[in-house]
Amino acid sequence: MDLSHFDKSACDERRAQLASRLGNRPALIAAGAPRPYGTHRGHYPFRAASHFLYLFGLHLPRAMGLWDGNRWQLHLPEPGADVALWTGPEPDFEALAEILGVAVLPLAKLPEALQRKPAATLPAPDVETCVEQSSLLGREIRPGKLPALDEPLADALIDLRLVHDATGIAGLREAAAATVAAHTAGLRATRAGLPESVVRAAIEAELIGRNMTTSYTSIVSVHGEVLHNEDHHHLLADGDLLLVDAGAETTAGWAGDVTRTWPVSGRYSPTQRDLYDIVLLAQAAAVAAVRPGLRYLDLQGIASNAIAKGLVGLGIASGDPAELVADGVVALFFPHGVGHLIGLDVHDLDDLGDRATYAPGRTRSPLPGLRALRLDRDLVAGMAVTIEPGFYQVPALLDDAERTKCAGDRLRRDRLAAFRDVRGIRIEDTILVTADGHENLTAALPKGALAIESAMRST
Amino acid sequence: MDLSHFDKSACDERRAQLASRLGNRPALIAAGAPRPYGTHRGHYPFRAASHFLYLFGLHLPRAMGLWDGNRWQLHLPEPGADVALWTGPEPDFEALAEILGVAVLPLAKLPEALQRKPAATLPAPDVETCVEQSSLLGREIRPGKLPALDEPLADALIDLRLVHDATGIAGLREAAAATVAAHTAGLRATRAGLPESVVRAAIEAELIGRNMTTSYTSIVSVHGEVLHNEDHHHLLADGDLLLVDAGAETTAGWAGDVTRTWPVSGRYSPTQRDLYDIVLLAQAAAVAAVRPGLRYLDLQGIASNAIAKGLVGLGIASGDPAELVADGVVALFFPHGVGHLIGLDVHDLDDLGDRATYAPGRTRSPLPGLRALRLDRDLVAGMAVTIEPGFYQVPALLDDAERTKCAGDRLRRDRLAAFRDVRGIRIEDTILVTADGHENLTAALPKGALAIESAMRST
Repeated sequence: MDLSHFDKSACDERRAQLASRLGNRPALIAAGAPRPYGTHRGHYPFRAASHFLYLFGLHLPRAMGLWDGNRWQLHLPEPGADVALWTGPEPDFEALAEILGVAVLPLAKLPEALQRKPAATLPAPDVETCVEQSSLLGREIRPGKLPALDEPLADALIDLRLVHDATGIAGLREAAAATVAAHTAGLRATRAGLPESVVRAAIEAELIGRNMTTSYTSIVSVHGEVLHNEDHHHLLADGDLLLVDAGAETTAGWAGDVTRTWPVSGRYSPTQRDLYDIVLLAQAAAVAAVRPGLRYLDLQGIASNAIAKGLVGLGIASGDPAELVADGVVALFFPHGVGHLIGLDVHDLDDLGDRATYAPGRTRSPLPGLRALRLDRDLVAGMAVTIEPGFYQVPALLDDAERTKCAGDRLRRDRLAAFRDVRGIRIEDTILVTADGHENLTAALPKGALAIESAMRST
Repeated sequence: MDLSHFDKSACDERRAQLASRLGNRPALIAAGAPRPYGTHRGHYPFRAASHFLYLFGLHLPRAMGLWDGNRWQLHLPEPGADVALWTGPEPDFEALAEILGVAVLPLAKLPEALQRKPAATLPAPDVETCVEQSSLLGREIRPGKLPALDEPLADALIDLRLVHDATGIAGLREAAAATVAAHTAGLRATRAGLPESVVRAAIEAELIGRNMTTSYTSIVSVHGEVLHNEDHHHLLADGDLLLVDAGAETTAGWAGDVTRTWPVSGRYSPTQRDLYDIVLLAQAAAVAAVRPGLRYLDLQGIASNAIAKGLVGLGIASGDPAELVADGVVALFFPHGVGHLIGLDVHDLDDLGDRATYAPGRTRSPLPGLRALRLDRDLVAGMAVTIEPGFYQVPALLDDAERTKCAGDRLRRDRLAAFRDVRGIRIEDTILVTADGHENLTAALPKGALAIESAMRST
């Protein structure tokens, strides 16, 4: 067991904080089960569910943490026979109790500990563990609407995890630094004629070499217009833009998330540069606005307005920029949210949905530019978010008469045709909200068109 | 959708073969569901369950293939809204029916199609899909004892998948070639002072770059004595042996599986070389014996006897080699099976347990050297197996008075102490059984101590 990333005092403090919010109400926190890898290829390396990881700091398969209203304890499966032979010596329950500073008991003792009083819980990310939770608690546990019993637990964890402690911020910095190194390796590996997968390999090798993994499936694609493109088999051609959205996950579980879009040839074409600079200005304007007290939704407006002005400037759209945003014309080119929380998950707290990521009383807007927005809280120092506007030419949007009706005659398709060498551009950084504004955790990665071209030449 | 790996005629033929074995008995073949990645980091790239992949050739999430006793059809979830925006344009049901050559229907039509007659099935590798299968079939589907209704389906698939067709053999060759390239990159990346993870990165980058993945979690460890060691954080030191057990999985799903053990310094010490040569001789003897008609279990004996002779030769054990094997003394140093089937899964057909991998009427031996043996069939041309003997000093075995009692005074611990710089050695190749013997699909990778040293120097 690699304990190098374990921070006992942070976990002690987090459990104490959660306990003080819960009082005498019991809560069961599930780590989840290893996921089977293919049909019979063993399991993926185990990664504990984030609520568990936040409180206990270790990836302990099938563990159940229990606040019994009085103290914390951890229930674990008994080690199997020959575990020392197959997976190596591990600390026994006594040693683990010492490491963690909580009582460690076999899972078999958990039903007894749960008898006293109904415990709150949150559904584990895997169905197998939800079935186990249902059986332990005598009620159906599954993702979806939160039962009233579980709401105080959810709200207490949201409250704690929205604002990162020093250990969390250090983890985000570590993830950001590795993510910057990975993108840098990707920039240097890019050459026409190679498949996208070779650039992906260069990026992910930087992470694997650090004993890290990816915080989500890397997007490394010349088809940036497909927003969650997970294909990596296209060949890179001169004239293509390569969109790379990839991030590290540290051993302790902290996520990085960065997007850059660079030219395969090492030089943006004039049309690519024009649109790149628009996305860059939009991103920079949104990042610059990040400070405590700002409503996150306003960043969507800042970025959208900047894109609207840019499109008008290039003659791709005409009319009043604010109206182009309000009428959904900008959302034809920028159809996703401007960013999200980031922490132990790349879309942090999204397992709890808008309850976590929208402030109480706020709900999703149905407007095209806002309905995909994952976050609408007022920013607080210690929150971490991404800022990631983009510009895409998505045939499913632009070729759909119903969807483009909002534009009327303000969309200049003849002019747009000149920009056909831009399928998708996105620029994203990971931003920490600080007391006096913000800190861009991924600022070390080149972002301006010239800086990117220069980084690509220096290989 | 990347169709470059899809082989329509092979799948047509496999489905026709299975149908002819099933006759009018219906069968439901589940592809399985994507596995959640962490708490809310999306899903792992989807990999279909191997029985499904064998018959339909594509990774189609949540797909259900149905043999209704008369014809094949495929049931798929309806595409979600905005799928073209988020995951890109995909062939619709009509286009997919054309590609596959079977009728494609929505999942919603499956309950109706299942009403006619009870269908056999096999449990999917994930609990979520087992729950879905249970609901569709009105009976509990879960891994474990096979109900009588499902036995003919299992036996027909075992019968087909035990012997690879030309497409399967081509897939295994492709996986083997990529695996050889990956190990070669690992050999060249090895340097004292680096963490194990950097060698792992070099290995896996070769696979990612080919748009492949690993067929199991790579073992890249200076602690080879932990058989399924998945830690990669130790620093490489001169004097260490690095055990690397890693294999490719091709886009089509075929597995590679190779182990080499090389010296971090680039030179085996005299004691390391002595034991390395013993394992090499054992592996070569077992490989040489592979031919149609051979009982796989006999390879365990061939390898164990070679190791016994070697240990006696080095003075680590004394007495009659055959008795050292029979009494379980060799199994103290070589406690695992000599290999397994390989195909679409690295432990092919292991989801069906010994029903698939042991010939009818054969059961596992309780003897220490045999109880972990995954395969005991008579070899047939077209089968693919691994051959992977090893030598390990596992404290949990050698320090256990109960387990070492079998050795009596035949274990020379004073002599063994001289070999303390060997924690674990394993040598493994992927072998295809051919009409006149065998072909080592991974023969291109250096295996002799001198060849490995030479490959490490040529970096």
